[in-house]
Amino acid sequence: MTAMRYLIIYDITDDNLRLKVAETLKDYGLSHIQYSAFLGSLRRNKLNSLIVDLRRLIGDAVENVQIYPLCDICFRRRKMIGKPKRYEVAEEHREQKAAYF
Amino acid sequence: MTAMRYLIIYDITDDNLRLKVAETLKDYGLSHIQYSAFLGSLRRNKLNSLIVDLRRLIGDAVENVQIYPLCDICFRRRKMIGKPKRYEVAEEHREQKAAYF
Repeated sequence: MTAMRYLIIYDITDDNLRLKVAETLKDYGLSHIQYSAFLGSLRRNKLNSLIVDLRRLIGDAVENVQIYPLCDICFRRRKMIGKPKRYEVAEEHREQKAAYF
Repeated sequence: MTAMRYLIIYDITDDNLRLKVAETLKDYGLSHIQYSAFLGSLRRNKLNSLIVDLRRLIGDAVENVQIYPLCDICFRRRKMIGKPKRYEVAEEHREQKAAYF
């Protein structure tokens, strides 16, 4: 079973829910490429499992997650303007980490 | 010259710059699908012109815009979780509009 690349973007107003969604996407091995966007490869069963997890998290809330598959041709033609930002740790952990400095 | 569909996502901390980028994307006829994402079709010359405009706006700031082409196959396989949100007017205009009610 081959993996496919996906771009996942979200618009979640609720801070707690946004953090949970970000942590879920990270748990699936996706990379945090923008404040509200993750990118990475998933096999079909993992994608389905992620969709189930996200549906459970979002429930009936007026919040929004969108998943776009990106074939190799689409992915190779992407463009970046500006500079990449870093989102290695969740907000909670960032505060914890800051205490070490 | 055929148009191609693009998903444009941005992570811009500066409020003023974010508003300018959103207005630029709207001026190019793209649809505001999430707080920090627009989607729509552009001919190649329009895409190039947009990239020039965005580069000029972003300059050397540590801000980030990413453009992903979406072929028909990728686009048809997109998934939405939760509910669509509405972003019809820019923040400034929303305030002006609110004054009419």
